[in-house]
Amino acid sequence: MSGSISPLAPASFPDLPPVAGVQLATFAAGLRYKKRADLMLASLPEATTVAGTFTRSLCPSAPVDWCRSILSGGTARAVVCNAGNANAFTGRAGQTAAEFTATTVSDALGVPANTVFLASTGVIGETLPTDSLAIGLQQLVGQLDKDQQPATWEAAARAISTTDTYPKGATASADTNGVPLTVVGIAKGSGMIAPDMATMLSFVFTDAAISATALQALLSASVDGSYNSITVDSDTSTSDTVLVFATGAAGNEPITDPTSPAALALKEALDSVNLNLAHQIVRDGEGATKFVEIEVTGAASDQAAHRIGLSIANSPLVKTALAASDANWGRVVMAIGKAGELADRDKLAIWIGDEQCAEAGWQKPGYSEAAATEHLQQDEVRIRADVGVGTGRATVWTCDLTHGYIDINASYRS
Amino acid sequence: MSGSISPLAPASFPDLPPVAGVQLATFAAGLRYKKRADLMLASLPEATTVAGTFTRSLCPSAPVDWCRSILSGGTARAVVCNAGNANAFTGRAGQTAAEFTATTVSDALGVPANTVFLASTGVIGETLPTDSLAIGLQQLVGQLDKDQQPATWEAAARAISTTDTYPKGATASADTNGVPLTVVGIAKGSGMIAPDMATMLSFVFTDAAISATALQALLSASVDGSYNSITVDSDTSTSDTVLVFATGAAGNEPITDPTSPAALALKEALDSVNLNLAHQIVRDGEGATKFVEIEVTGAASDQAAHRIGLSIANSPLVKTALAASDANWGRVVMAIGKAGELADRDKLAIWIGDEQCAEAGWQKPGYSEAAATEHLQQDEVRIRADVGVGTGRATVWTCDLTHGYIDINASYRS
Repeated sequence: MSGSISPLAPASFPDLPPVAGVQLATFAAGLRYKKRADLMLASLPEATTVAGTFTRSLCPSAPVDWCRSILSGGTARAVVCNAGNANAFTGRAGQTAAEFTATTVSDALGVPANTVFLASTGVIGETLPTDSLAIGLQQLVGQLDKDQQPATWEAAARAISTTDTYPKGATASADTNGVPLTVVGIAKGSGMIAPDMATMLSFVFTDAAISATALQALLSASVDGSYNSITVDSDTSTSDTVLVFATGAAGNEPITDPTSPAALALKEALDSVNLNLAHQIVRDGEGATKFVEIEVTGAASDQAAHRIGLSIANSPLVKTALAASDANWGRVVMAIGKAGELADRDKLAIWIGDEQCAEAGWQKPGYSEAAATEHLQQDEVRIRADVGVGTGRATVWTCDLTHGYIDINASYRS
Repeated sequence: MSGSISPLAPASFPDLPPVAGVQLATFAAGLRYKKRADLMLASLPEATTVAGTFTRSLCPSAPVDWCRSILSGGTARAVVCNAGNANAFTGRAGQTAAEFTATTVSDALGVPANTVFLASTGVIGETLPTDSLAIGLQQLVGQLDKDQQPATWEAAARAISTTDTYPKGATASADTNGVPLTVVGIAKGSGMIAPDMATMLSFVFTDAAISATALQALLSASVDGSYNSITVDSDTSTSDTVLVFATGAAGNEPITDPTSPAALALKEALDSVNLNLAHQIVRDGEGATKFVEIEVTGAASDQAAHRIGLSIANSPLVKTALAASDANWGRVVMAIGKAGELADRDKLAIWIGDEQCAEAGWQKPGYSEAAATEHLQQDEVRIRADVGVGTGRATVWTCDLTHGYIDINASYRS
């Protein structure tokens, strides 16, 4: 955690229920940060299934490589995360540190190493100090052994943070044939956030009984509209990871068909948690003072709409105008034009909030710049563009670009 | 012109020779700016050939539409540019204003309207005031009629500026079979600069005799390594235009084959002027304090290297690190990873200046961060990355991302 809390932060960390079978532990291992927990362990009961999605970076971190290599096993007994060091671009030593972490936890918990999932976030290019790590991992496992008060969700969310200004958690519930299911997630991320994940870690836990294959199908469908629809600065991390663990402790009839009513009920809860966490990440965008929703309609396809939305959301000129509450919709036109997707300039329509600025490729008669400016002076703003060629639509979320972003990234080595 | 002069500006505007047959005029028409020239006219002799390249934006300005529609004629008698209003996204009124401008100049000079080229730069979405324009255009033509002292290259370069902090000009000469050829260019641009042009206007004039087809071939080959290899903020304007006019007044044997020795001699001069102007645009990047050269080698193709270079050059995290002289080469790894082009993480090598930071996918033993930092403290810096998969190479140029960029774009409506 760093700096003052984002003005867009929720009032407080939400009340999150326990997820049967999940035990949390945190520890201050001093890997980079001092006087704060920087290691998190969640131990998971037998029969826990797992699904995951990872960065599309071609230079992924060692933990991402590790998770990818064990994901096909479909079962998980633990997830370990450290903050402050990404263990990325660390060559053979990075792989060794990842294997060391998994093996240490595997031995201490008496579970197979290929059920221990890993994530690291922080500086790229520095080797994880395995001696401090060894001490920290023993401490984490020891907390579980001693049947101490387990760490809270909030403590866990804090332990995985880097430049985040507040811990991020969300929950939702579902009902399948009368059996209540719980979904709880924690996440971190505020810079280097762009589609195809971000320096974004998200760990979601549910007590649902569901096969790994069905869980993966639900997750893969869920990330497009959530984590892959947010952007802070267009930069994509080497370490982005979303993992969903399903303990099965709820006792529902195990879900194997991702299109069954039970699966869809669970998916709704999962989507809700993922979208909530994704929005919280944007709200913690480095230097953000406005939460921005961008809706694109009338595109050639949903994918085209998504790309146009991201072109608007990633445009430094749009983002600086938003920071200034400047209703400069010409910059939105520019961003649509550069997106490389079909748009009919002469049918283009643009709204700021509920005020329509442009229609049919021109400023709308009677457009009130004052009304648009008033909308932009709020801390939650909306832009909509209809590009006039089809029925494709998408919504993406971003934040404004301010001096705060420069301050954070020109001074903190993240 | 606005603000204080970029610290990366050349010491002074260069001495530029006349180009036989080209007459310049400027006028303060008050279209947006007060107390400065904002209209520029260059009149061109009969037999002048023309080549052009334009923005790839799908929402091009009315002047870009106009130029595209007349370019195939291959001849030019005038080019008119106004600053402060882009005449973009102005619907039918924009088209009318463009036709009005061309027709007015056509009538006044007694030349065909389809030989009058147009460019506008400035705010998007506002209609050009044709009454002020009419007065201004008559004044411009009147300057030529009265055989007044024609405007200088520097005056012309100033008249086409918007947020530029200094006027941009360059020259080069060539020799074809003993006949000297002169190339002179002026350009504007500082924000919304990205490949596929920028809010960048460049007008290049030569006294060479060359067919329009051959001239277009030389220009098309020249822009890839110059204007299309620079980026300030990844934003692409609706108005980008490069026009090259060849008066033929030098009296060389007309060039028709773009691969002939005479053509290659001219191309060398044209490339030199274009690269010089492109670099000047980056040096005037909004808020820039460092001129950054990024060289990518070892890519699957030159095109792949170009894309990786731009991914590094456009990364806000790389650009803020450069602003802080922070040798955070991990961000370069990140930008390579997100580029979507083949790179071998475990062969990656990175240099800052002459200091090698990384080799074989890891920090290089003996790497001196002090040496890298010292290099970054200069105002001209170099980054090189070898991605270890092939022989493709490319060089791109950009600037750092600073508080100045936010100041300019969160306050000035450009």
